[in-house]
Amino acid sequence: MRRAALAVAAVVLLGGADGGVDPRLLLVLGGLLVAAKLGGEAVTRIGMPAVLGELGVGILAGNLGLLGWHGLEFAITDAQLTFLGELGVILLLFQVGLESNLGQMAKVGAAAFTVACVGVALPMALGYGLHAALVPERTWHTHLFIGAVLTATSVGITARVFKDLGRIDSPTGRVVLGAAVIDDVLGLIVLAVVSGVVTGAERGGALDALAILAIVGKATGFLAVAIVAGPPVSRRLYRAASALRVRGVLLAVSLGFCFAVAYGAHAVGLAPIVGAFAAGLILDEVVFHDHLAKGDRPLEAQLEPVGQMLTPVFFVLTGARVDLAAFADRDALALAAALTAAAIVGKQACALVAFGDGVHRRSVGLGMIPRGEVGLIFAATGAHLMLGGQPVIGPTTYAAIVLVVMITTLITPPLLAWSLKAAPAGGAA
Amino acid sequence: MRRAALAVAAVVLLGGADGGVDPRLLLVLGGLLVAAKLGGEAVTRIGMPAVLGELGVGILAGNLGLLGWHGLEFAITDAQLTFLGELGVILLLFQVGLESNLGQMAKVGAAAFTVACVGVALPMALGYGLHAALVPERTWHTHLFIGAVLTATSVGITARVFKDLGRIDSPTGRVVLGAAVIDDVLGLIVLAVVSGVVTGAERGGALDALAILAIVGKATGFLAVAIVAGPPVSRRLYRAASALRVRGVLLAVSLGFCFAVAYGAHAVGLAPIVGAFAAGLILDEVVFHDHLAKGDRPLEAQLEPVGQMLTPVFFVLTGARVDLAAFADRDALALAAALTAAAIVGKQACALVAFGDGVHRRSVGLGMIPRGEVGLIFAATGAHLMLGGQPVIGPTTYAAIVLVVMITTLITPPLLAWSLKAAPAGGAA
Repeated sequence: MRRAALAVAAVVLLGGADGGVDPRLLLVLGGLLVAAKLGGEAVTRIGMPAVLGELGVGILAGNLGLLGWHGLEFAITDAQLTFLGELGVILLLFQVGLESNLGQMAKVGAAAFTVACVGVALPMALGYGLHAALVPERTWHTHLFIGAVLTATSVGITARVFKDLGRIDSPTGRVVLGAAVIDDVLGLIVLAVVSGVVTGAERGGALDALAILAIVGKATGFLAVAIVAGPPVSRRLYRAASALRVRGVLLAVSLGFCFAVAYGAHAVGLAPIVGAFAAGLILDEVVFHDHLAKGDRPLEAQLEPVGQMLTPVFFVLTGARVDLAAFADRDALALAAALTAAAIVGKQACALVAFGDGVHRRSVGLGMIPRGEVGLIFAATGAHLMLGGQPVIGPTTYAAIVLVVMITTLITPPLLAWSLKAAPAGGAA
Repeated sequence: MRRAALAVAAVVLLGGADGGVDPRLLLVLGGLLVAAKLGGEAVTRIGMPAVLGELGVGILAGNLGLLGWHGLEFAITDAQLTFLGELGVILLLFQVGLESNLGQMAKVGAAAFTVACVGVALPMALGYGLHAALVPERTWHTHLFIGAVLTATSVGITARVFKDLGRIDSPTGRVVLGAAVIDDVLGLIVLAVVSGVVTGAERGGALDALAILAIVGKATGFLAVAIVAGPPVSRRLYRAASALRVRGVLLAVSLGFCFAVAYGAHAVGLAPIVGAFAAGLILDEVVFHDHLAKGDRPLEAQLEPVGQMLTPVFFVLTGARVDLAAFADRDALALAAALTAAAIVGKQACALVAFGDGVHRRSVGLGMIPRGEVGLIFAATGAHLMLGGQPVIGPTTYAAIVLVVMITTLITPPLLAWSLKAAPAGGAA
């Protein structure tokens, strides 16, 4: 018994549960970081944000199989690199949150809320209508689900473009980021309601309003508590931490705070990156004062190299997971084209309702385009929900939704960069 | 077909091959970083290096099961956290290598080589003798294997203590680090020879001298090429990279270089951290000149926060994998006590042969104490080699070796810190 436990302990000491870390990952990670810079360089020379180059490098690396070379495929689906990428996008949103603060966000709160509501309602209506027109043989439940899939904005890509162009701390940036956070809450509600409707229909019962209220209450309650309790709690936390004399306390406490809020967001059903963004918003220059006085370097400067190491992993992997072969499936491609149009056009209505000094409306609409994890979670949920003996989301529809996510992710960086650069100096349009 | 592929792509987009990243890891990572600081603070207040606190926090967290709480056990063996820790210790050795350079290391080369040879020969002889005396019923092959297990120094702990105390760039630091690198090469040779002897005995054949020569040639050839070709290659690499205009090129190229050399070391049978150390030694201030002139921050300053995020993961996990329950197995503990004594005493002979201006001999001997991965790899190899129908390393012996690794890892930080602080100002003793 003891000896068996010790043998296990030894295997674990040797590096991880499942036989340790694959050393090839070192080579892949190093190559990825250098290639990301080369890709970034190539696209910035033609005036595009660096993230587009990282996605491009990823697409190339991820589709080498089409040329008959499969040597990188183990890395694209590797859980350890995926975790690095997740940390990278969480840190990105934390950095983005730090560049703004709650007071500034509150000023654009009404505009962001309006943008978010329109950006959820219109794509939903368009998705419903288009699917009803193209696939009339399915029931209205399926149309509703397709509409729901198109609602939620994926904030990672947009935040990165704003960061690449140095525009996070602008009215336009704040409206888009604020709307994306509200979007995530609305998306959660939509998923709960739509799933409830379908499950109710299948069982012949009614919608479980109480369960849906509980979901909504948890998510909004979490954000409310974060906004209200966050500032005083963080002030006390950082003051206590400033009593420590070891090096690196500011960074460790900030990462701990960011990861804790990100986990909290996940726990109430929101995306972890929404939590990381909220954590950044909550923290204010004031809380770092004692640490900076002790000689710590500013938090943003410390986070920069950490982000530079981890964030490209996320975007290169995102690119690598774009399966170019998928674009050869005609049925899926046709449906995807229609849904992508609905997804894009629907969000452009946000441009019409965005308001506020210095808000560049066209950029708001374009910044809301990317669909990501949330849409895929909806699709996966729909693929598991049965109605009348068949899944609400069938294989072709599922494939089309994956294509919508890929296309909206890839077209946003060039469009948004073009739009922001073409915006008049004042910003409003 | 296509649709199945797309479904896979979607699962992958959702986050990793095996159902994505466990969000609890965020909470664990954040807690680990904060706890590591608290542990570091506690021990630095009593004059010990911070790494001891990180190990201590790990031991506490890893043995909560003894109190009946198993909530953290998933994290201790998690492959993703393990990978973060591996990156952390690789970056630590890269940083340590950057603080020195090839010219300074060459000056202590003879001393380091002498220390390494004595530090391999004596523990081997003592281990052989002790095991022959304690377990006389086993053949000399087993005694030889036990001796081999005790040879190789694990440089991670020692490098960290020198770094905590700001003594890397001292003659003592250079001798110990140089000896540890040579140790790794010698250890590889010893493992090849000893395994060859046992395999030869089992098959009734002779030692395959050619195979052993090939192993030795690969490892020494790799280090020779790295030392000779490294400086001119890196100069050209960094000059070419300085033509890029995107941000973060210096960090990306340096990480790429470090990871590539670390992988190369692994590929020839050496530890990746030995490669990372060599990568740091090769890089010279000169190669960064163009990048610093462009306004990049110094590489060491950029690596610091990255290391502060990742390195504690390695040491806390190392502590967490110390299974306190193992110390209750009497047979294993008795053998472990004897082998630990042989391991420690054997390396103290290094103190007698260390020479050079400013070299603190006692600290050299203490710095060579830790045994780590290499010893465990030897033990695992021995557990799989059969001789006369039984494994060369049986379960009790294996358990004892794990204990030797644990004990030598834990006693080095306090002993070395005490010794370095007690050293006369000049350093020599």
